This record gives sequence, structure tokens and C-alpha cells, in this order.
Amino acid sequence: MVETSRRREIEDAASLLFREHGYSGTSVRDIARALDIQGASLYAHVTSKQDVLWSIVQRTAERFEEAADAAVGGAEDPVPGPGSRLAALVRAHVEVVTDDIERASVFVHDWRSLSVERRAEMSRRRDAYEARFRALVAEGIEAGTFAPVDPAVAAAYLLTALNGIVAWYRPDGRLRPAQIADAYADLSLRAVLAVENED
Amino acid sequence: MVETSRRREIEDAASLLFREHGYSGTSVRDIARALDIQGASLYAHVTSKQDVLWSIVQRTAERFEEAADAAVGGAEDPVPGPGSRLAALVRAHVEVVTDDIERASVFVHDWRSLSVERRAEMSRRRDAYEARFRALVAEGIEAGTFAPVDPAVAAAYLLTALNGIVAWYRPDGRLRPAQIADAYADLSLRAVLAVENED
Repeated sequence: MVETSRRREIEDAASLLFREHGYSGTSVRDIARALDIQGASLYAHVTSKQDVLWSIVQRTAERFEEAADAAVGGAEDPVPGPGSRLAALVRAHVEVVTDDIERASVFVHDWRSLSVERRAEMSRRRDAYEARFRALVAEGIEAGTFAPVDPAVAAAYLLTALNGIVAWYRPDGRLRPAQIADAYADLSLRAVLAVENED
Repeated sequence: MVETSRRREIEDAASLLFREHGYSGTSVRDIARALDIQGASLYAHVTSKQDVLWSIVQRTAERFEEAADAAVGGAEDPVPGPGSRLAALVRAHVEVVTDDIERASVFVHDWRSLSVERRAEMSRRRDAYEARFRALVAEGIEAGTFAPVDPAVAAAYLLTALNGIVAWYRPDGRLRPAQIADAYADLSLRAVLAVENED
């Protein structure tokens, strides 16, 4: 479906409502009311509430993937070490989350409300994204830069911490997105870095 | 309301359904059907779906608080350092989450569906719990044991990572609760520990 500014408005309104009331707790009528239009007019732009959710979740998945590609897929020579790449991946993720906290929240919480087939597709895509973290952690362990953690556990730990930003971030809050990105990159990198134990 | 075994069964069934379909996506009729009883019989034990949610969330909050008290409130002399206490706090949290993953999931995701007054009460209680992490991080920084992180950011980071376990833990999965507790305590402690930089 072609992205129009009206459709963008519909998805903005839906993201706000899904975030506040959940997907199940929001009706097409609620979305129409938030836009001050009739439910019938809404159906000129979207086929169903599920369609709106799918569009939001898909587009947000793309943004995470594109940001991760840009952060670590560069043609830098020599390739930066796993620590630098992990920090870049964390920053990229935090930037996508804080740039559109409503859509990020829907992505994190409401993707489970997708229909069975779409949920399976998104599950594969989320797993492929998480695999970037797992592979980088494994590479860092191999290189001796990272502590011998379980890469799958560490990847789950890091990603849920990053996604947890949707629970507390407020655009008018004390911290700017760049400060959060810095702090989260530091915490995440330290969490996996091998420590020279001096005790 | 007195806790009876029937009521316990109702809350078990409700926790499973809330986890799978969310609070809004679950009806009292769904809960009754899961227990193979009539909706009317259910109302002999609970006054509303909201009442069931409140009971689950309250009891789970108590379990987190009691576990944290037991983990760091001991009369050990000398008092263990902030690092040991943070690791103990993390372990205690992970144990409560993995011990009843359905209730933990409802606690993490569905508490926002509480009525306004209850939500405000639970919000205060969650904040007091998070304050234990903030205070411990601040104490560790003061002692020079922890890196100079923002204690509020670090506490949010750690707690959302810990709560993120509800998104992936399966009792029949590869890892036992004690292994997850060990791995999460290591990751969390390293995330805040001051590193002797040798570069």
C-alpha cells in the first residue's frame, strides 16, 4: 500500500493509542476519533486494525535493520574490533527507539498481536536481528576481547535492556537521546568486556 | 480476600491467558472456560477481571520485595560491598521471574491495565523497588568500585534487562534458572564495575 501523509497520520495516531491501551484495547473507531474523522473514512486508507499494526511493525523493523547495517556494515578498512562494532550497534538501536518512541513501543510490545503468519515472519526477522548481537559477542569472545559469556544469553540481555527504553523514555525528560545512547553503549560494552582481574 | 486454592487456580489460569493475549484481550468468560467452569461460578471467587489482575500484580510485587529484602537486608557483619549486594539483588530478581514466569510476565506487561488509583500505587511501589538499584549503584560509585554511570540510567538498564527474561525464558528451555541467575549477575555487575583501563 502506498504511504500517504494521511496514512502516516493514521499510523501516528494508532501508535499512540496502541502504546497507551495496547492493540486489543484499541478499536478502529478509537483511531478514527483521535483523527476526528469517521470510521468509514478511515477504511479508505487502511483495510483493518491488523493492517495498521503490520505496517507499523514492518516499517520499524526496517528502521532497526537499516540503522544496524549503517552502523556496522561499513567498508571501513581495517574493520573495527568487536567492541567498537557492538557499541555502534547499541547506539544505532537506541537512536531508532528514541527517535520514535511510540512506534518502538508498538514494535516491542504489540508485535505479538500480529496474525499467526505475520507473527512467524516477524519472529524470524527479530531473530535475524538478534543474531547480529550473538555473532558479534561470539566474535569478541573468540578474539579474547569479551568475557566468556553465553552469546545467546548476552544478546538477549542486551537487546531487552535496549528495548526497555520504551518503558521509561520521555522526549521531554532529563536526558537527550545522544546521552542515553552513550550511557547504554558504555553499560553494554562493559557488560561483555573481559576484565583484567587484579584481585 | 482470602487466598483459597480455587482462587489460586483462577489466578494461574488468568496469568496464562493475560500473558498470551494481554489483559484487554482476555475476558472473564475466557478465564472460566480455561477452568472448565461457568462464568457465574467464577464470580463466587472474584469480583472482576480487574480484581484478578490486581491480586496477581500485588502478590508478585510482594515476592520481588521479599526476595530483595532477603538478598541484601541480612545482618551480615561486615556488610558485603556494593558489588556483592548488587549481584545478590540481581540473582533474587531472576529467581522470582523464572520461578513463576506467567505471573512475572503479567507483572511486567499488564500492570499498566490497572485502574488509575491502583496503577499509581503500583507505580510508587515499582519506583521504590528500582530505588534499591539506584542507591546501590550510587553507593558503588561513591566507593570507587563502580564506574561513574548515571545511577538512574543504570538502574533502568539493569531492571529492564532482568524483566526482559519474561520475553524469552521457557521452563523447558536449554538453561536452568540458576544458570540464568549466574549469567545475569555477571553481566549486570560487569556493566557497572569500574574497569582498570590498561590501554
